[in-house]
Amino acid sequence: MSELSVPGIRLGVAQAGIKYPNRDDLTLIEMSEGSVTAAVFTQNAFRAAPVLVAERNNRAISARYILINSGNANAGTGEPGMVACEQSCSALSELTHISPTEVLPFSTGVIGEVLPVDALNAALPAAISDLGSSNWKRAAQAIMTTDTVPKLRSKVVTINNGTACQLVGMSKGSGMIQPNMATMLGFIATDAVISREMLDGMLRAAVNVSFNRITVDGDTSTNDAVTLTATGQSAFVITPADREAALAFQAALTELATELAQDIIRDGEGATKFVEITVSNAGSEAEADQVARTVAHSPLVKTALFASDPNWGRILAAVGRAGVSDLNVDAVSLSLNGVLIAENGARAASYTEEAGVAAMAPEDLILSIDLGRGEKSATLWTTDFSYDYVKINAEYRT
Amino acid sequence: MSELSVPGIRLGVAQAGIKYPNRDDLTLIEMSEGSVTAAVFTQNAFRAAPVLVAERNNRAISARYILINSGNANAGTGEPGMVACEQSCSALSELTHISPTEVLPFSTGVIGEVLPVDALNAALPAAISDLGSSNWKRAAQAIMTTDTVPKLRSKVVTINNGTACQLVGMSKGSGMIQPNMATMLGFIATDAVISREMLDGMLRAAVNVSFNRITVDGDTSTNDAVTLTATGQSAFVITPADREAALAFQAALTELATELAQDIIRDGEGATKFVEITVSNAGSEAEADQVARTVAHSPLVKTALFASDPNWGRILAAVGRAGVSDLNVDAVSLSLNGVLIAENGARAASYTEEAGVAAMAPEDLILSIDLGRGEKSATLWTTDFSYDYVKINAEYRT
Repeated sequence: MSELSVPGIRLGVAQAGIKYPNRDDLTLIEMSEGSVTAAVFTQNAFRAAPVLVAERNNRAISARYILINSGNANAGTGEPGMVACEQSCSALSELTHISPTEVLPFSTGVIGEVLPVDALNAALPAAISDLGSSNWKRAAQAIMTTDTVPKLRSKVVTINNGTACQLVGMSKGSGMIQPNMATMLGFIATDAVISREMLDGMLRAAVNVSFNRITVDGDTSTNDAVTLTATGQSAFVITPADREAALAFQAALTELATELAQDIIRDGEGATKFVEITVSNAGSEAEADQVARTVAHSPLVKTALFASDPNWGRILAAVGRAGVSDLNVDAVSLSLNGVLIAENGARAASYTEEAGVAAMAPEDLILSIDLGRGEKSATLWTTDFSYDYVKINAEYRT
Repeated sequence: MSELSVPGIRLGVAQAGIKYPNRDDLTLIEMSEGSVTAAVFTQNAFRAAPVLVAERNNRAISARYILINSGNANAGTGEPGMVACEQSCSALSELTHISPTEVLPFSTGVIGEVLPVDALNAALPAAISDLGSSNWKRAAQAIMTTDTVPKLRSKVVTINNGTACQLVGMSKGSGMIQPNMATMLGFIATDAVISREMLDGMLRAAVNVSFNRITVDGDTSTNDAVTLTATGQSAFVITPADREAALAFQAALTELATELAQDIIRDGEGATKFVEITVSNAGSEAEADQVARTVAHSPLVKTALFASDPNWGRILAAVGRAGVSDLNVDAVSLSLNGVLIAENGARAASYTEEAGVAAMAPEDLILSIDLGRGEKSATLWTTDFSYDYVKINAEYRT
């Protein structure tokens, strides 16, 4: 992975000592002139200061820098947090001779403490002098908080005429949210040539089936964000008229975003299982999603997954409380890693406890729920609830 | 508590060996002729066989017996489960010379296994010969599953003219649901004179602000039920025309139901905290309830409660994702056991970490969330998430 690069993108890291000393906690991404950036932000009503500033700046102008700190989320910090965030953008703009609005700031870490902007600003020159095109891996490491592994993925998109573009992305997060310490962030870049409008549509389409389809605990962060920058420095041109290039790029982008999202689930706090939940034959996608999320968030299902216990009664009970109107329980069936567990609203005739235990043993589980009432489906990726989940989240501040 | 009784009510217990030997697991409640019974049942789409039978029977006729077994929920058991349930009602009806439809059956325990009806029926004569008016405490013990304490409460309702009635109730459950083993059940009786229609309305009003306001894990059982029987054997007459008696009875019933519901939370699986969450100044009651439930179900909030960590950032993040449209975060404030923690969407100016830690220390916590946008409110009672919660639910079947 050390050779990864996207023409037009340079990255630099530095140690600002925001929460811990001697740890890379400041990341700078430089985007060449003419780059366009699309971004999506958390839907939480309590949005952190950097989310508000980044969203505003990205609406106004095409950004030249992404500035990320770990160790402090600058969320729940009111006006002082906004001031600190703007000061970091201003300091960077002075050093790089751009406008402060050309900076997109991102923060992740503890909630409720104002960003220590002096420490951050003091480290900016080091980050700038570190800028280089092959620093993706060091950057993926520097944006981590409680993550145990860096998350970095890449694709090359090639079409029939031989033109190609790079697609490189990194993410962080050890749960969809742990607002005190770990926020879900994703930064993706490509050298394709594309309008901001198309880029935005493609990012939203990809996020909708990747980052928006993972959950550890149902909690939505105050700081979540994903960006996609296109530097336009390749011959790969994407236009609405060119169906081949657009479809190839969208497919690769969606695949990359899905890998980065799944990397977060695999590194979920205390996770011992990687669980794909698919709800099929639902009346609508929203209904399928609702059932999948209810099952994914059920503490009883999650603790049974931790125990590798094929406790199908808990899954049926979660399906039954998901709020699907007029659910015909006799049409519902469940299978786990291909083993039919329940049908007609009860234990499957062919099911044996031995087969269930064997199906539950692997780390990777596919839970299929068939509602038998329509043709729509939805897939979600989630984790179990373990002792370590409680430990990590109960002991974080003590 | 040994003297508790309600004229017209007799209770008997027996050992049917449904799951464990040498343990009272069968409970019979006899209601004198002329008694009326109101009942509410789980809203889960997967309703257990006894729920379906009890609801049908209670619509058809005034019940004479409530038949409860622990150790087996007879849920997710399809047609064989229905047959077993009906057979238990028939067996009791033959022994007591009533119609099978005059029996309301309730089951609680493991999901997915058909009720061992032969074992249950064999123990019916013992339960019948045990019938007595002062057996409430033994019955409250016999309906337990993973509960660590029996839950029994009583009230005497007296009005100005001196007439009085008894109100005695018992509940079981160690969480709003643990469908594999513990279901929330409540059985309440009074000797007041009242129509079934009024009784039904009063039970629904009481349940709505008591049993429906508790949550351990957000999971709704397949077997939940609460009944209220009035034997009419006192001089306490409740009619729509008599406001004093109706209001006094409703107040006592609501208080009793709230105590029984809170007893369940205090005995919640792995619970180390009893938490009252009140959301005030909301735009609607539904909105207040939605915010309270989102906070109550947040695993991050629950693990912080377990750690006695005044982690207000997690609470704000949960409020922010509760789906309240156009929430003005600057109007939101939080206080914990009277200590103002957050205001204007950020840490309160007066807040100190020391005060927060001190406020979090007690076992009983009151979390007040002021949305600052209306005049409606809602209260909910919940628990924390501890290692023992994971242990109890991960190890139950192993």
